[in-house]
Amino acid sequence: MAKVHLRGNHSKEKKTEFSLVRVKSTWKRKVAKKVNNDTVDCVSAAKIYEIITVKDTSWTVVSPIVFTYKVTETRDLLDPNNDTLLLGHITDPQQLEEIKNSNKPLKRFIVVDQEVYKIYGPKLTEYFESNNVLCKVLALPTTEENKSMEVALTILEEVNNFSLDRRTEPIIAIGGGVCLDIVGLAASLYRRRTPYIRVPTTLLSYIDASVGAKTGVNFANCKNKLGAYIPPTAVFLDLSFIQTLPRRHICNGLAEMLKMALMKHRGLFELLENYGRMLLDTKFQDDKGVYGQSGLQASQATRIAITTMLEELAPNLWEDDLNRLVDFGHLISPALEMKVLPSLLHGEAVNIDMCYMVYVSQESGLLTEEEKQRIVSCMVGLELPVWHEGCTMELIQKSMQDRLKHSGGLVRMPLPVGLGKADIFNNTPYEILHRAYEKWCDELSVSSDSNRDP
Amino acid sequence: MAKVHLRGNHSKEKKTEFSLVRVKSTWKRKVAKKVNNDTVDCVSAAKIYEIITVKDTSWTVVSPIVFTYKVTETRDLLDPNNDTLLLGHITDPQQLEEIKNSNKPLKRFIVVDQEVYKIYGPKLTEYFESNNVLCKVLALPTTEENKSMEVALTILEEVNNFSLDRRTEPIIAIGGGVCLDIVGLAASLYRRRTPYIRVPTTLLSYIDASVGAKTGVNFANCKNKLGAYIPPTAVFLDLSFIQTLPRRHICNGLAEMLKMALMKHRGLFELLENYGRMLLDTKFQDDKGVYGQSGLQASQATRIAITTMLEELAPNLWEDDLNRLVDFGHLISPALEMKVLPSLLHGEAVNIDMCYMVYVSQESGLLTEEEKQRIVSCMVGLELPVWHEGCTMELIQKSMQDRLKHSGGLVRMPLPVGLGKADIFNNTPYEILHRAYEKWCDELSVSSDSNRDP
Ligand SMILES: NC(=O)c1ccc[n+]([C@@H]2O[C@H](COP(=O)([O-])OP(=O)(O)OC[C@H]3O[C@@H](n4cnc5c(N)ncnc54)[C@H](O)[C@@H]3O)[C@@H](O)[C@H]2O)c1
Ligand SMILES: NC(=O)c1ccc[n+]([C@@H]2O[C@H](COP(=O)([O-])OP(=O)(O)OC[C@H]3O[C@@H](n4cnc5c(N)ncnc54)[C@H](O)[C@@H]3O)[C@@H](O)[C@H]2O)c1
Ligand SMILES: [Zn+2]
Ligand SMILES: [Zn+2]
Repeated sequence: MAKVHLRGNHSKEKKTEFSLVRVKSTWKRKVAKKVNNDTVDCVSAAKIYEIITVKDTSWTVVSPIVFTYKVTETRDLLDPNNDTLLLGHITDPQQLEEIKNSNKPLKRFIVVDQEVYKIYGPKLTEYFESNNVLCKVLALPTTEENKSMEVALTILEEVNNFSLDRRTEPIIAIGGGVCLDIVGLAASLYRRRTPYIRVPTTLLSYIDASVGAKTGVNFANCKNKLGAYIPPTAVFLDLSFIQTLPRRHICNGLAEMLKMALMKHRGLFELLENYGRMLLDTKFQDDKGVYGQSGLQASQATRIAITTMLEELAPNLWEDDLNRLVDFGHLISPALEMKVLPSLLHGEAVNIDMCYMVYVSQESGLLTEEEKQRIVSCMVGLELPVWHEGCTMELIQKSMQDRLKHSGGLVRMPLPVGLGKADIFNNTPYEILHRAYEKWCDELSVSSDSNRDP
Repeated sequence: MAKVHLRGNHSKEKKTEFSLVRVKSTWKRKVAKKVNNDTVDCVSAAKIYEIITVKDTSWTVVSPIVFTYKVTETRDLLDPNNDTLLLGHITDPQQLEEIKNSNKPLKRFIVVDQEVYKIYGPKLTEYFESNNVLCKVLALPTTEENKSMEVALTILEEVNNFSLDRRTEPIIAIGGGVCLDIVGLAASLYRRRTPYIRVPTTLLSYIDASVGAKTGVNFANCKNKLGAYIPPTAVFLDLSFIQTLPRRHICNGLAEMLKMALMKHRGLFELLENYGRMLLDTKFQDDKGVYGQSGLQASQATRIAITTMLEELAPNLWEDDLNRLVDFGHLISPALEMKVLPSLLHGEAVNIDMCYMVYVSQESGLLTEEEKQRIVSCMVGLELPVWHEGCTMELIQKSMQDRLKHSGGLVRMPLPVGLGKADIFNNTPYEILHRAYEKWCDELSVSSDSNRDP
């Protein structure tokens, strides 16, 4: 529980801590010290602190809200015999029984990315039809340019016309991070919170955008400026969607996976080092050809990426703690991504940021030269850009200043300190940032150039 | 903490409960049973439950977020010597000291209801000027008709241009419930949550809209269809605003006050019974004239209204518990309010709903005839409508059906069971609802008619 500062120390003050106890349908405040847990119906986790002074009376309310959500990796999500998409979010076995025994058709509102709909539309239709679901499928061009409150409101109009039951009929979002973020925000706003389900269809959203609580849309030319921290009821992950994803978007997702590897998991790093190329070629599918049992590495890699991500997100769901390893690669990349729009995908910009930071680590003596080179080679192997001319020293400095402003006066820069380990640093001197920049350009700008014009 | 149902009981399942412990900057999941609180840096309140079956792997995240906010009744809020409006939300004494000793000017973004600005604009300007605050005051016609996402977005554009520091510069809302609700929603969306402060200027928002977590705007012709449950950082209450409020709006607020009295506090009921007229005449001010010490009753009444409201809200901030005494008067009134728009104010519609329910209580044997009559007389004394031709038996039935749908299959009807006591009922037979309706019309429709045409 958060510490509560209660202001003022004057002698004329009367402070009281109250618990809240329920007697039948009524909540009553009771002086906390006097509450006996055995004799009352129910004691809330909430508290009220009252302070009475000559001038003012104030009440401080401290109320914990518990968020619960479920992330499930499964197979054959769109197989008509698999009821996960329809019922997998229900955790109460009795409720589940009742629904299964009822012959009332289920009702679902689904928003799906238009490109995904082009490929999976027939399967989706068949799935809902053969399960006798009353449904409305809304296919939308959920691109970064359309990631706006206007599109969220369009969805909300349709949701409202569909008149779903907010308590039992979750909204389902199927698509990449853009689709999931917009629908998540729309659902969070509808009747102050309507449950929703995420089904990611890109690798990036599979391991990243899906597993946390964040939703959002762009606003006034800024990425994700408006949003909420309301987690989905459930996330259903099925790797088979990835088989139709363009290769560049798989690299894009691999960048966020590499982030978790560098920050937290040497095993994942070595997996990407050794099998990255194979994962790319097989698109995370179980390949029956040259690669043999590629499915094993694919599921290992996604499982580690998800569990390490959950480890960092669960204790900090609303990002109240500003020291976050998951911010690695996200200090310079937002400005870079916006500056060169649309030439870099999110994961590509993140990788360029991470690569520069690896140079900072090495220059700071946190990584050996050999470790640095292994990381850079791994990035190249994952077909990710490791340098960009748009990432200038000015941009780096400006990003650090912005960071200072929004991060409570400290830079809080995550840096790798060995392979798969990291820490957070606040006082990296300008000379190191600058020397790292020079070295980074020296060693990698040429290879990037030659990549472009082979 | 919420109970976590973990689905499935099959033998081939592996279930593990993980705690999250922080070692330096890294969070690690550890099997919960093995965590030793003494040897690790920090254990989170969050948990992760993993279930592995042959088919699926799932992780259930349970993460509590603690909301803390402060409600302060004060005087002379706009006196340039009172720093409550600028610094009253800061709870950390050290941070407060630093700000007071710094000579950097404070920066604040303020949204104020246009009508309120007409009256209090000069005082506001003087307040911020003499405290050397860099500020932007946005006066908007925050009427029920403008209570929309469009107006919220207009505010957000301005907030974004003002470039405030989200961590230290809360947005301030000054006005009635409409203004507070829109600004609260806008702030909740900005960067996924920006602190905001509420300063209510109507009696209704003073005792009701201000003290909880709800924000919202109307959408698709429905009241508060979009919104969030993000409480303000602080609420500053100053009764002196009420002196300029039209009499009808004071009655409007008294209705919500009477609601709390009927549900929870006989003393408040008796206060309203005996001094209601005086509170109306003096507009909750300390009258130096005929009424003598009216300020005492005014502050008693608001204090009880606020503390009883906080008792019910604090343990149920996100309204997860559907059994809510504060819903009294709010079962039929939303439909009635929309049906006869704009002829009834919110509190007026609420009072009509409450009055009918008092008849239901009496008909059910929960209230004596005498208690019923005392309540009705009190309502009439507060100059509130006790009957309306728009409130037909059809409307009542339709409202009950809607309630069933949105309330998890039970009506959960709060009813008074004596003066200042209540309980929640699910099985009131139709005959009682009908008999109560007949009696209500018999006894009160005439007096209402004669009220209209004296
Ligand atoms: N909420 C979070 O925590 C979080 C985390 C990371 C990123 N994000 C957001 O996610 C967005 C990026 O997500 P993204 O990379 O998934 O991009 P995206 O949603 O734009 O999808 C990328 C492209 O792939 C197509 N596509 C999607 N699935 C496909 C499939 N199975 N087969 C073929 N084509 C498919 C889409 O139509 C699109 O053209 C950004 O807006 C970012 O802000 C959010
Ligand atoms: N968030 C919540 O928990 C909650 C609870 C109850 C009501 N509400 C909402 O509050 C709204 C109703 O609030 P309201 O009754 O305050 O209405 P309001 O905000 O419309 O204000 C009523 C009128 O009084 C004027 N006014 C305000 N302060 C004044 C003053 N000091 N002097 C003179 N005139 C003044 C306003 O300009 C307006 O014309 C509804 O939209 C309702 O949904 C919200
Ligand atoms: Zn990212
Ligand atoms: Zn109300």
